[in-house]
Amino acid sequence: MKRYLITFSYDGTDFNGYQTQPNLRTVQGELEKALKEINDHQETPVCASGRTDKGVHAKGQTAHFDLTVTITEAKLKRALNSHLPKDIHIIKAQSVPDDFHARYHVKEKTYQYQINLGEYNPLERNVVHQCNHMLNIEKMNEAIKYFLGTHDFRAFVSENTQKENCVRTITKAEITSDPTDENKYTFTFTGTGFLKYQIRNMVGLLIKIGEEKRPPEEVTKVIQSKDRTKAASTAPACGLTLIKVEYEYPFDKSKKK
Amino acid sequence: MKRYLITFSYDGTDFNGYQTQPNLRTVQGELEKALKEINDHQETPVCASGRTDKGVHAKGQTAHFDLTVTITEAKLKRALNSHLPKDIHIIKAQSVPDDFHARYHVKEKTYQYQINLGEYNPLERNVVHQCNHMLNIEKMNEAIKYFLGTHDFRAFVSENTQKENCVRTITKAEITSDPTDENKYTFTFTGTGFLKYQIRNMVGLLIKIGEEKRPPEEVTKVIQSKDRTKAASTAPACGLTLIKVEYEYPFDKSKKK
Repeated sequence: MKRYLITFSYDGTDFNGYQTQPNLRTVQGELEKALKEINDHQETPVCASGRTDKGVHAKGQTAHFDLTVTITEAKLKRALNSHLPKDIHIIKAQSVPDDFHARYHVKEKTYQYQINLGEYNPLERNVVHQCNHMLNIEKMNEAIKYFLGTHDFRAFVSENTQKENCVRTITKAEITSDPTDENKYTFTFTGTGFLKYQIRNMVGLLIKIGEEKRPPEEVTKVIQSKDRTKAASTAPACGLTLIKVEYEYPFDKSKKK
Repeated sequence: MKRYLITFSYDGTDFNGYQTQPNLRTVQGELEKALKEINDHQETPVCASGRTDKGVHAKGQTAHFDLTVTITEAKLKRALNSHLPKDIHIIKAQSVPDDFHARYHVKEKTYQYQINLGEYNPLERNVVHQCNHMLNIEKMNEAIKYFLGTHDFRAFVSENTQKENCVRTITKAEITSDPTDENKYTFTFTGTGFLKYQIRNMVGLLIKIGEEKRPPEEVTKVIQSKDRTKAASTAPACGLTLIKVEYEYPFDKSKKK
């Protein structure tokens, strides 16, 4: 038995989210189907760094699994890609120690959310949220900084995660404009972890602030309220992409085993 | 009766090309269906600057048509967009003189073809051609210049256009790298007009040159041969986008009518 970590990308448009659900097409479902082919037709459960919702994309999602068959990293990558549909792609397959865990050992995750303030572009409709109001980017830039640090993000989670511990640390929160299109903006968030709908709810509030319907300082007030009804509506899934998952696990040392 | 010119974009992925075909979903078919709703349920034929093939996209395609109903440019844009599916978008609607013709008055057209030499990205699979060989960009840059000028492009057209006059003028032909992704390249071609498959066949030859299977000077030899069998295979449709159509028609003057 050998444990592997894969780094992979997907277009979330035609999936019912990451996690397996009966009779629905999911990213995990497709991965496990492909792995079964490779791993001697045995059921091969996949454990990802975390779920992504329906319509959310990934450029650097990660997951681990155990194989009984012996296969090199390069061959595993090739074999998986040959069995996977065109909307999932394995970027990297690494052999990892048996105690490595794709979820428990996450150090930081980075997500990006893209919005377009210019003319609607049908070629990007599944990856960019189209905003039809002008937004005050300066105010949004001021507002996004209030998310930095360690906070209880209870006000920004979906109702069914309210019972969880909602304290998370955000180490990076910024808005950048696209070098080739002045009407496109990207929100980047890096943190120890994010709760269900957290980023989409944070972006929803930032958009309200950009529309000048609420002042930038509202971010702090909403965080402090711990009340979901004080935040704004959830921004659409399509704008969100999981960019990168970083681990604290000492991979280099483990490889010397 | 009033003539209008529209500028529009589309994601070619789910269309059977631009031109109307019985029982198939086409861009023209969707436009004419939307116009019928707006133009008092009358059949309203649309005349585009030219066709695009199945899977080819547009960011700035143009077409004219005549309406019997009276409508402002802004309202026409809004009404069309509200009747069109999400993969077509009207960017601009302009009132034009009755003798304006979207095809006959074309001055220049610009197309771009995108390739990716890096890791496959499922989020861009419908708009970028994935190349799995390393390409010598320097040689391709040298080769693309040979397309500039006025030539008989018979060697680069599909078989059923062989009888046409194949003389065309290319005023711009260049390769640029993506400012945010060093593995992505864009071929830009501007010219008086392009024949069916011409750009995809030119790109096919450039890729062969990039793979160092043929030298850059081959471009001139293939042009001179006027022989389709001397060129390379046609590059896939998905990488190609019609960017812009320019007219020689004096719009400003016409508006004073």
